[in-house]
Amino acid sequence: MKRPTIADIARRAGVSKVAVSYALNDQPGVSVQTRVRIKAIAEEVGWRPSSAARALNGARARAVGLAVCRPARTLSVEPFFMELISGIESVLAPRSIALMLQTVAGQNEEIELYRRWWGEGRVDGALLVDLRDDDTRVPALAALELPVVALGPPQAAGGLTAVWSDDGASVLETVAYLAALGHRHIARVAGLPGLAHTTVRDTAFAAGCRTAGLPEPVVVHTDYSGDEGARATRRLLAPEISTVPGISDRRPSAIVYDNDIMAVAGLSVAQELHLDVPRDLSLVAWDDSPFTRAVRPQLSALTRDIAAYGACAARTLLASVDDERVESIQIAPARLVPRASTGLPRSA
Amino acid sequence: MKRPTIADIARRAGVSKVAVSYALNDQPGVSVQTRVRIKAIAEEVGWRPSSAARALNGARARAVGLAVCRPARTLSVEPFFMELISGIESVLAPRSIALMLQTVAGQNEEIELYRRWWGEGRVDGALLVDLRDDDTRVPALAALELPVVALGPPQAAGGLTAVWSDDGASVLETVAYLAALGHRHIARVAGLPGLAHTTVRDTAFAAGCRTAGLPEPVVVHTDYSGDEGARATRRLLAPEISTVPGISDRRPSAIVYDNDIMAVAGLSVAQELHLDVPRDLSLVAWDDSPFTRAVRPQLSALTRDIAAYGACAARTLLASVDDERVESIQIAPARLVPRASTGLPRSA
Repeated sequence: MKRPTIADIARRAGVSKVAVSYALNDQPGVSVQTRVRIKAIAEEVGWRPSSAARALNGARARAVGLAVCRPARTLSVEPFFMELISGIESVLAPRSIALMLQTVAGQNEEIELYRRWWGEGRVDGALLVDLRDDDTRVPALAALELPVVALGPPQAAGGLTAVWSDDGASVLETVAYLAALGHRHIARVAGLPGLAHTTVRDTAFAAGCRTAGLPEPVVVHTDYSGDEGARATRRLLAPEISTVPGISDRRPSAIVYDNDIMAVAGLSVAQELHLDVPRDLSLVAWDDSPFTRAVRPQLSALTRDIAAYGACAARTLLASVDDERVESIQIAPARLVPRASTGLPRSA
Repeated sequence: MKRPTIADIARRAGVSKVAVSYALNDQPGVSVQTRVRIKAIAEEVGWRPSSAARALNGARARAVGLAVCRPARTLSVEPFFMELISGIESVLAPRSIALMLQTVAGQNEEIELYRRWWGEGRVDGALLVDLRDDDTRVPALAALELPVVALGPPQAAGGLTAVWSDDGASVLETVAYLAALGHRHIARVAGLPGLAHTTVRDTAFAAGCRTAGLPEPVVVHTDYSGDEGARATRRLLAPEISTVPGISDRRPSAIVYDNDIMAVAGLSVAQELHLDVPRDLSLVAWDDSPFTRAVRPQLSALTRDIAAYGACAARTLLASVDDERVESIQIAPARLVPRASTGLPRSA
């Protein structure tokens, strides 16, 4: 099982590989009759110019790369990635451009992957996700001169073009809303520490609580999984058994989660503990999804159009691949949609 | 912004492109000193042999293709695809093999895509999903001699290697369970008509109802979306306003859904209609997921390890790429996990 090669055509035509190459590339060195015969055989065996040969002639790879540095199993946990990919595909598919997807174990492996993809002509550009504080991929990719669009805050994207939304504004809106309802002890179940957008949210959360005159908030970082979201919630709600340093003795009356699946898991924990949501505990999910609307009570959520985010990043990347001058683009921040999971605290 | 080419190296070294090619391919024709100098420049500018040049030398593309013939937006609706991809990635990533993902508008476009990917040396093999009755991709891919593994029933996979589970057995188990509880009017909200596994499930559902002595069941086909699942549920539960031909006047006391998101949507409809689940209506979801466990009552579901399904298909494909003789593999069928959404009907 092999794809047809120049050697196969040469064998069938009874000529050298060089003659086949001349004929297929319309270079002099073979007779017109031989050229016609060789082209007919190439057509018959289904030969096509290889992607690298086309790349040498300036043709595009017609693929863009997306490396994801998370364990494969967590890819499926959050609707986020699939919504992002569906948005990317909505731009790529009509142009017959493929998405090269690969999960990697670390930043060095990811850099090496982009180097290989770019050097071998497999991709025309790449989308960078999960920007970290002091991200080593940023200078490495800038040096490669591979067209790249980073999905994340410009301060973490260095010189790379960024497509981003102001997560800080969304956090401030949420804290102000909960404070206005009368909540004083608001906790946050955050995503992976070290991710640039986690840092942006952490900073804004602390600032929002200060502005509202609330005590220093408790933040627990997790891996975004439902399991860790449930565990963090149990610790926040049963502080006497908590092993998390810095968790106050005051049970929070509101918790803000960094994704939808952790918020749903948190709701289940609250129900196990026979807490009334929202009277005993208000819950807010970041990233609205079918999940947040499927549960009862439906979850108040920070909603944004993730597919549009992916589509915008893909469009910007394709413009960059086409040598157009592209600027970083700020898209609308996630906005709070209050539903039945938030309300006045019992004490208010 | 261009990847370094042989021409760039030639320019920097002050030699011809032919000389560079000789040097990099360790062919005679250049002096040892020139060869060393050219290789040093190639290293410095980050030049790599192109993927097609490597393919001509028998090197692998180190990528497998997956075309999905569904609108991009529905990719994100079901956890199924992302779980499948995470299983595929769990096999590919440790081997540094990428997944080429592309959504396509129809079977002809998909066939043309595989032809291009294979002919241009972009993929070493492909995974075929959403097998249809009389699938035109099957003979086309068999003719290409592209290594392919089809995810679906062997009767639809023709001569292609199939990785599959017996959906019929799972349907029979579900109908027998509901009949044993005393349900007589069981409806089915099915996925896309024409898909091979939809046909397998339809046939088994009718056979199971016959075996249990139940009246002819009502089946509504949908596009798998929550919206269509909700609409189908409303029609089934309010038959007087139904426009679906063949829907009986008897409201079903149990509904089996072809995916998780439609079952969750169906539960919301039941709650809007103030029906008690399971006393007024029992619900079963196909494909267990965080969704089915996040709602209250938790949904009885047909559960299978989708990631393992994807991993098995990827492993089989890689064996086929390695010219190993591979056989179709049957994996364990989805098994029913009864939860709080199924029970005795009120009339029983």
